[in-house]
Amino acid sequence: MNLTPSEINEMLPFLLRRENVARYEDGAVVIGNRSKYPFERSFVRCTDVECVAKAIEDMVTQGGGPSNAALYTLVMVACQTEKQPKPLRRSIMEAASKRLIKTRPTNTALARRLDLAMQVVYRTLEEGGDVEPTLLAWIENFRDKTARDYAIAGEFGASLIEDGDGILTMCFAETSFLLALAMAQKSGKRIQVFTPETRPYLQGARLTAPSVHELGIPVNIIGDNMPAYVLSQGKVQKYFTAADLVTLDGHVVNKVGTFQNAIAASYHRVPYFVFSWGPDKQKPDRASIEIEERDPGEMRSCRGQPTTDPNIGAYYPAFDITPPHLVSGVITQFGILSPYDLARFFG
Amino acid sequence: MNLTPSEINEMLPFLLRRENVARYEDGAVVIGNRSKYPFERSFVRCTDVECVAKAIEDMVTQGGGPSNAALYTLVMVACQTEKQPKPLRRSIMEAASKRLIKTRPTNTALARRLDLAMQVVYRTLEEGGDVEPTLLAWIENFRDKTARDYAIAGEFGASLIEDGDGILTMCFAETSFLLALAMAQKSGKRIQVFTPETRPYLQGARLTAPSVHELGIPVNIIGDNMPAYVLSQGKVQKYFTAADLVTLDGHVVNKVGTFQNAIAASYHRVPYFVFSWGPDKQKPDRASIEIEERDPGEMRSCRGQPTTDPNIGAYYPAFDITPPHLVSGVITQFGILSPYDLARFFG
Repeated sequence: MNLTPSEINEMLPFLLRRENVARYEDGAVVIGNRSKYPFERSFVRCTDVECVAKAIEDMVTQGGGPSNAALYTLVMVACQTEKQPKPLRRSIMEAASKRLIKTRPTNTALARRLDLAMQVVYRTLEEGGDVEPTLLAWIENFRDKTARDYAIAGEFGASLIEDGDGILTMCFAETSFLLALAMAQKSGKRIQVFTPETRPYLQGARLTAPSVHELGIPVNIIGDNMPAYVLSQGKVQKYFTAADLVTLDGHVVNKVGTFQNAIAASYHRVPYFVFSWGPDKQKPDRASIEIEERDPGEMRSCRGQPTTDPNIGAYYPAFDITPPHLVSGVITQFGILSPYDLARFFG
Repeated sequence: MNLTPSEINEMLPFLLRRENVARYEDGAVVIGNRSKYPFERSFVRCTDVECVAKAIEDMVTQGGGPSNAALYTLVMVACQTEKQPKPLRRSIMEAASKRLIKTRPTNTALARRLDLAMQVVYRTLEEGGDVEPTLLAWIENFRDKTARDYAIAGEFGASLIEDGDGILTMCFAETSFLLALAMAQKSGKRIQVFTPETRPYLQGARLTAPSVHELGIPVNIIGDNMPAYVLSQGKVQKYFTAADLVTLDGHVVNKVGTFQNAIAASYHRVPYFVFSWGPDKQKPDRASIEIEERDPGEMRSCRGQPTTDPNIGAYYPAFDITPPHLVSGVITQFGILSPYDLARFFG
């Protein structure tokens, strides 16, 4: 389709518009506050690194959001340290990058992007250039390229969707998924989407469902306990998610529940497709994955309301791992790849 | 073990104590209010049929509770119609029974028990006996026998539990399940329980987890999206649920989520056992099952708190159907039966 970054941006729902994910504005990092959505359309405005790190840790943003917020944080720190001697400036920026990487042990894309940005910082410092505008230009260029890659993956995703399809998803599969739906709809395919609410943070109910609804596509929120039933009713023909991480040997790490939906989809002979930027070369296999366990207290409440006695035990693994034999295809900018052949494309 | 009904009652947690499920007191039906548990230990007091029917429909009680509440309602109506001519009294009681049966289209045990109780009513009316005390004595006797049957099933269940077992359950599997856990613990087996919260009514978080905790057994609340992950970690050796209904050919109808957990258990080679009173002879197969769809608005809130935009579509099937090939055994008063051989025992 060869859409421009701004044409792509206009196809997206509110939450995924580039300026609403995160932006650098008047020396501050402004982050779209997904934790309040859809009840409020608000932003968190940060003027120091800890504020951004906390916002990421507190799920103010997620998915592709943390990377963008973290990249702009480096711009902010570059601006704040402009008057410092070079070695100090370098070490302050390194410390900022390290703090930001620590916010998300499972999603290694954040670390990889910060590393790339730090290369730009080092190079500019060495060359005696102006770090703030150079880094900002690099980020905007990176986001343009990212938008185009999202659209390429979106087109591959749309090509898998057939007229009349029911589509199951999990959590908030973000831009490529939403673009795939928008493109399928634009080409006249009638579709409907089933989105499990995704406890405890309710990304399915709060982010995915309103975003799909905004595109004018029929959407049904279901409980996280309902995908298998909906599959058994023949209401679902495709299962799509994003991935927080894909290993070189094709294991998909994503929001907890993704795996059991994949098992249920496989049981019902419904294919499962994953949108991904490609495997993480540092993660050869499932043994290399560290699953983040979050505060069990989150499983004893829902939107701040207690759901049980606070003294009862609870367990909250935030992600799970889907083995490659349950994955029909990994949708990347190179095409819809077998999970067993990722290393060749991204090696 | 040959426990008396009162010994059995004393083994049970608060919610499942006979007097706390439902009782007939001073001409009123008093129903333990599970919808407020564990935040309040309160009761709903009804002096007319509609109040009880609404309480059942509004999930004030569930599982075995509706049957008991409904049976005592017939006693209450018998008392209220004492002065009426026999044919009118009979038709008022019939209308009450019909209204109560209508409250739960999926759980046919309620209908069967009310039919049995109505036989007692008809017989007593014909014989010119005193309906209220006769029916009340019949119900108490029925509950004694029920308690003994629960304990028999509980012992069969306990025999399946091994020292060190992690146990997955779903929703609130009630008396036989809790007795099985209590008996396993009493015989020195160390166990732990994982209970999915069971959205939208949170029976797992609100009812099962506090009840298991009350028995002094370690329990962890997990999200409905987490059973497969917990299974993949090797933390679960047995999966147990109750059943709202079992068909003659071994299909298990239970709270939505039961089926996808059974698929995930089977995938991980963990056996699934169902506590049941036996199949419903009126239900030969899955085609004979009507799955109750409840108000989709329930999927857009949690304990009264909105979880999304109220204009977004939602879907709330309350039950699902697990096919017999995923069921390792049906635990009944006759033993742990194959789901493929129920008709012979209960034919």
